[in-house]
Order: sequence, then structure tokens, then C-alpha cells
Amino acid sequence: PVARQTSCRYVSKAAAKTQMEFEYDGPSMKTEVPGPRSKELTKQLGEMQNVGAINFFCNYEESRGNYLVDVDGNRMLDYRHLLHPYWLSAFVNRPALGIMPPENFPEKLSESLLSVAPSGMSRVQTMACGSCSNENAYKAMFIWYRNKERGHNIPSDEDMSSCMINQSPGCPDLSILSFMGGFHGRTMGCLATTHSKAIHKLDVPSFDWPIAPFPKLKYPLEEFKRENAQEEARCLEEVEDLIVQWRQKGRPVAGIVIEPIQAEGGDNHATPDFFKKLRNIARKHGSAFHVDEVQTGGGATGKFWAHEHWGMDDPADIVSFSKKMLTGGFYHKDELQADKAYRIFNTWMGDPSKNLFLAEVLNVIRRENLLEEVTRSGKTLLQGLYQLQDQYPNMLSSARGQGTFCAIDIRDDATRNSIILKARDKGVLLGGCGERSIRFRPALVFKEYHVHMFLNVFSDVLAEHN
Amino acid sequence: PVARQTSCRYVSKAAAKTQMEFEYDGPSMKTEVPGPRSKELTKQLGEMQNVGAINFFCNYEESRGNYLVDVDGNRMLDYRHLLHPYWLSAFVNRPALGIMPPENFPEKLSESLLSVAPSGMSRVQTMACGSCSNENAYKAMFIWYRNKERGHNIPSDEDMSSCMINQSPGCPDLSILSFMGGFHGRTMGCLATTHSKAIHKLDVPSFDWPIAPFPKLKYPLEEFKRENAQEEARCLEEVEDLIVQWRQKGRPVAGIVIEPIQAEGGDNHATPDFFKKLRNIARKHGSAFHVDEVQTGGGATGKFWAHEHWGMDDPADIVSFSKKMLTGGFYHKDELQADKAYRIFNTWMGDPSKNLFLAEVLNVIRRENLLEEVTRSGKTLLQGLYQLQDQYPNMLSSARGQGTFCAIDIRDDATRNSIILKARDKGVLLGGCGERSIRFRPALVFKEYHVHMFLNVFSDVLAEHN
Repeated sequence: PVARQTSCRYVSKAAAKTQMEFEYDGPSMKTEVPGPRSKELTKQLGEMQNVGAINFFCNYEESRGNYLVDVDGNRMLDYRHLLHPYWLSAFVNRPALGIMPPENFPEKLSESLLSVAPSGMSRVQTMACGSCSNENAYKAMFIWYRNKERGHNIPSDEDMSSCMINQSPGCPDLSILSFMGGFHGRTMGCLATTHSKAIHKLDVPSFDWPIAPFPKLKYPLEEFKRENAQEEARCLEEVEDLIVQWRQKGRPVAGIVIEPIQAEGGDNHATPDFFKKLRNIARKHGSAFHVDEVQTGGGATGKFWAHEHWGMDDPADIVSFSKKMLTGGFYHKDELQADKAYRIFNTWMGDPSKNLFLAEVLNVIRRENLLEEVTRSGKTLLQGLYQLQDQYPNMLSSARGQGTFCAIDIRDDATRNSIILKARDKGVLLGGCGERSIRFRPALVFKEYHVHMFLNVFSDVLAEHN
Repeated sequence: PVARQTSCRYVSKAAAKTQMEFEYDGPSMKTEVPGPRSKELTKQLGEMQNVGAINFFCNYEESRGNYLVDVDGNRMLDYRHLLHPYWLSAFVNRPALGIMPPENFPEKLSESLLSVAPSGMSRVQTMACGSCSNENAYKAMFIWYRNKERGHNIPSDEDMSSCMINQSPGCPDLSILSFMGGFHGRTMGCLATTHSKAIHKLDVPSFDWPIAPFPKLKYPLEEFKRENAQEEARCLEEVEDLIVQWRQKGRPVAGIVIEPIQAEGGDNHATPDFFKKLRNIARKHGSAFHVDEVQTGGGATGKFWAHEHWGMDDPADIVSFSKKMLTGGFYHKDELQADKAYRIFNTWMGDPSKNLFLAEVLNVIRRENLLEEVTRSGKTLLQGLYQLQDQYPNMLSSARGQGTFCAIDIRDDATRNSIILKARDKGVLLGGCGERSIRFRPALVFKEYHVHMFLNVFSDVLAEHN
């Protein structure tokens, strides 16, 4: 740790020294603010997100001490920069992206997040984590829904005054429909749609929102087509019933949120047909359709987004992400963009340094054809799990997966946990999900020979348990 | 921008190359997992936060490709690392701090956040942003409150089953008392306690939680002692009434949240006497007391935490922070620590790289005596504002502040906005808050000569408006 510390300190001290040695001697204005370059960049970014709160774009490299330099070369004495208190180095600067983004922000968004935007979506809003991404996606759906209800007229005085004291109509009685077994985060809005484990929810006040059953399918899916289709139809019927019930209750469903694969809840799959019909139900009832790809997005299913397996041109109104994407955020259709600045907003709005890394990660994925690699490794993995399941029918069942996003059920919770620990002692890290599943979440660089290495260890562990 | 891009790409490519060139050829186990070093570090970190979810500590420098190396030298094939998908570089690795923190994490927490812990608090939980910090602080207060109600017995079966469907008693009807004009964030739990501007809250469902009046004081405080004391007494009485009312309604107040200075709401101050009495009311009614220092923390008031101006040994049960601290999070008393892992939790739990920078920032603050500097500059600034207010009594009023955390009221909103724009054209960046205030939020390195530079520009702008 000594070497590591020293190198960290070195970077920071050098930066601090620069700051001490060099400060401008006063403001210097070249253009109006925002100047032409800021205006041009605001226009560019306006194609990607709401820019109503942006003052101007900053040149953080030239900014020093108490002076902020904008992209038009204006140097201003900064009486308001809450956010980069000492300019120790470029990394300490966490710009307030919603107000004063750096010059390369639109370019980096294009190279990174927008280069992998889901079908039908050209806009993206970054956020710091998965929970914030979903919270803000829900807010976007509520705002969109209420704007429709108001016929896109401006809010009434009653709207404006009642919202200040948490009352309707300003804070409306709207709901988000979620699925039993779903996981969408742990902040209070998200948590009202999370239903995977009691420990996440216990003792936290919640909202009276509808919760539909998620299909409990039999695997392999292609061997139980008829039964599975019946189960999916049952769940879809329940969804429509709930939408009607909650409308009658006076808490209309503004949006439906679902994972393409319920991950935390036990790697529960559904068929493309289910998702297509669900998306149509949302459309029919005027609810937004939000696909939560926080766990599934980024390539592990063999496609960049798991919902691409559904084969739809218009799969969703909102797609949220985090984790593998290195930054949180959500894509959305144009009409889901909040109509005013500061409605979908926070101080940091993510961290632009993560976009730089993501652009490079995406280059590696493309250069190394990692999605094909994942598809190949995933097929080998699932095949291996099927074989082990045939070999140990009393211990293993329901092997399932897409790409390397795989899981298998173990006899019971105790055996599951014992297998995880034994595998760890042999140098293989596994994780659990649901009540008695083991889930596989390898990196995208997991190759076929890693699969074989794993299957050998797993087979040894199973033999010890039989 | 060309040079900048190239240098970014250089860093990333070099790292990617390393990853391609070098991967281990298989797992290698040296000790049980967790080994002795992991156990020792878990014990250390256990003094600072809940460690129930930690598996082991990682050596991220030695980890490569599909292999995770722990601090005891065990090399494991990683089938579960959701979070550092391609190991492009140390900065791409956003470790899941709650499960597999890096080796230096306890040490860096001690050097950074814990070295400035508020009085009476030895524990800290990092989070990615201010909203997540407050959301999780609220959850900690709810969990603490319900544990008291249950007499610290384990939750009932009804608790466990009802929480899964958002119903009480598992999701209890508890509330957080907040203040009109307060700002605590924009995710749905926080937003229910935010009451500064309608645009933040409009169209988002909320909770029926009590909202107390924040004292509307006259400035300078020392000239209106008697009237201000009456106003504060009125507000405190209302707080107690609301606590009783909400208990009778079946929504007891689990916690009270307040800013030491209402920032977004218009730089509203209250006296130390008010906060002392409020803290006692919280104690008397068994509610937790949460001081939100997201805006005020980090030194701008001339003390590291604004609540230190109250002069109390036991100022709060929870203190949340973000912004100037570079990372979000909250300090809390031992008894506010959740009793189990995964209750206060998320994937990233902040970003440890921010702790490294914060440690260095704190060194600069100490070395340069920046808090004294702030106190000196702040005095000069406030003195200058008083003089301008005497000179322009029809335009300016209520100059107020602590350290450089200052504000002044302008005649009306239109004049305020015009002054901000004119100052910007002269190279001085100002911000607004509340309905018609200008707020000052300079960096800690803002010296007296910067104050004079500002006062000259401000004086010119005012002369143009008179």
C-alpha cells in the first residue's frame, strides 16, 4: 500500500501546487455570456437532453482558483461554484453537469451512451447511480402523465400551491405498476417497486401502488411452451385488472416498470411474446413503459440490451441503466423529456469522467467482438449446466440463461449457500439470487476455456454434495 | 480538445493492452476466504460502518481479466463481478464497496471523512450523491424507530410479509418532519421533505408528512433579538403540535430533518438557541434529529460544519453531506446503525476515489488555515454588504451570513435577475436563491482581495440599477 499511497499523493500535491502558484489577477471578458461557442454546444446538447438549466459550457482545464473560464475564453470571478471547491485537479472537479458542463460533454455523450442507444431513443440523462436513475425515470413518467392529463396546459395555481405541502393535485395520486420479485433500487420511490427480499423493504414507509405477478415459467422454455403461454396470459390479465382497479381507486398507473430478466428476484425469464403484449397493454392504457436494464444492460445477455431479444422497433418509452455502464442514467423517447429545466435534475447529474471510460469500454467491446464471445461462452455454459442438471436431478433444476446471464436452482437455500462457499474455497466466486438460485455474472471477457474451468470446479463441488 | 482526448485514450488503451497481454492461468488459493488480512480489515471497518455484507477485501491492483485477487493473495475466477466489467484501469473499477472494498478503504475513510466527523459521531456511510445520502439517512431513522417500537425484538411474520406488498406494519406509516423552505433533494423520499420551489415537486406523488414553519427572522440577528426569539418560539411550538398531531393520525414522526441554514430556500438563518431547543424537542418525543449539511458542510461558514456554531456536544443523531465533500454520505451515532447488512446498502455505496481526493483537500484546508481565511473574508464581505445596503436601502436588505456563506435580498425577482446578468457581463458569477435573494458561495480559497474585487463590481452594477 505504500507505493500506491505515494502515487496518489503525488498526483494531488502536484495539482495543489499548480493552484497555489498560479491564479489569474482578475476577470477578463471576451464575449457576452453565453458566447457563440457556448450557444453552439447548448444547441448540440439540446438534441440529447434538456438544456434549460445550462448557463454556459466551461473550460475546466483553464479554470483556476476562484476563476471559472468558459469555452469562449471569458474568465469570471466565481462566487458560486459550490462544486469544485479547490481545483486540486481535473478529477476533483465534479462539474455541475446540468448547469455548467465541460466542452467535450456532448461529444463524449455521443461517443459513449448515445452510440449504444436502444431502438427509438435519441435522448439520454445521466445520473450517479441505479436508484437515482430509476427515481428520475419515474419522475419523468409522472410529469409526462400529468402533462397529458392537463392537455399540456400550464399547471394551475392549485397545482403549484398544493405541491408545496405534498398534497394533490400538485403531488398527484399516481402510481407505478411493478412486478412481484422485481428489483429497481432502494431509495423510497424505487423501493415501492422493489419486491425481491423483505430485508430491503422492512420498516420503510411506502406507496400504495399495484404489484402484478411475474410469470413463473418452466425451463427450458421451449419444452414447456403451452404451459408457459398460459402462465404469461394469466399475469397479463392480472396487469390489466390492476390498471383498471387503480384507476378506479383514484391512483392511475402512470407507468409500468419491469426488468427483461428479474435478476435479484431469482433470474426469472419471460418470453418475447409476454413483453410485446405487456408493452401493448401499457400503450392501450396510456401508461409509460419503463424497461429497467440496470442489471441486464451492457452485453451480458449476448446483445447490448436484453430487451433487444424481443425484436421490437418500439420496445419502451424509458430504458434505465447503471452498473456495467459505469454511470447511471436513462434513455427516453422525446415526449418523455420534462418540459422545463430543474424538473429532472440534481447537482452532479452523474460524473463525466465515467463517460470517457465508457467510450473506451465500448471500443473494446466492438474491437474484440465481445458480444459474440458472450453468446458463444453462454451457450457452452448453459449446455454444461443442462448436463450437470441431468447428472444431479435431485440437486439441480431449471438451468436457464441468455448469453452468460445464467442461473440454476439448487435443492434448497442451505445447499445453495454451502455450494457457493465450497466453490469459493476452490477459487471460484459465485453469487446467489432469489430463494435458492445460483447466478452467473461473469465479465464480458469470459471465454469458453473459462467456462470449462468453471464447470470442472462446479462438478467437483457437486460431487462432494451428492 | 485534441490533446485532451488523446491523453484520455492513451491511459485507457494502455490499461486495455495490459489486460489483453496478461491474464492468470487459473485460480490459486492461499488461505480460507475470508483470510486473516480480510478479517482484520473487516474488524477495522466494523468500527466505522456496518460490515455485514462484506465478503472479503480486494487487491484491485493485482486483479486481472476474470480473476479477482483478495488481500490474502487468493486468486479467484470471478463469476459474479457485475461491477468492474473489463478492468480497463484502476479508475474504471468501481468496487462494490459494501461487499468487496479495496484494502486501503478503512485507512482512507479515517484520513478523510472520519478525520472531520462531527461531535459525538464515529461512524460514516458513504453514498454517491446528496439525495441518496438523505434517502438512506431517512431509512436509517425509520429502521431505528421501528426497532425501538418492537423493543428490539425480531420482526414479526406479519412485518416480513406485509412489507413485500408495500403495506403496514412492514412498511410502516411513519413520517419525517421537515420545514417549509427546506431543500433535501429530489428523489421521492427526500422530495417529500423539500419545500423550496414548486418546480421541484410538481407532478410527483408524495407522502403525507408534517411540515413546520422555519423562523422568518429579521437581520442583522443581533438587532432584532426579542422579535426573533418570539418568532422562533412560535415555530418550535408548531413543531411540537405537529409531532402530537401526526402521532394521533397514526403517522408518528420518526425523525426531524433540518438545514443549519436553509440554503436553496433563501439563506434563512436561525439562532443556536432555536436549534438547541429543536434538538431537545426531538429527544423528548423520541424522534431522531438529522442535520442536513449537504450545502453548508465543508468549511464555507468558517467552521467545518455549520452546526458547530451551535456549540453543542450532542448536536445531532445524523449529519448528511455531499457537494464540497466530493462524495455523498452521512455520519451517525452508533445506535442509528442498521442492525443488519443490506438494509442501508446499494451497489456502489459511493466511489472510493473521491475519498482519496478528499483526504488531500482536507490537508490543504489544514495547511493553509482555510477556515480562518473564510472567517476573515466572510467578515469583510458581510461588512461590505452592510455598507451597500445602507447606501441603497430601496434596493438591498437583509444582508446576512456566516463565513462566506452570505446572502442579501434584492427589491424584487426581476431586479435580482438583472443584477446577476450584469455582474456576469463584468466577469463576476453570482447565484440566486429563494424568491429574491442573491447568494454567495465562493470557494474556500476566496481571499480578502477577492472580496474587494467583488464589492467594486457589485457596487458598479448597483449604481447602474439605481
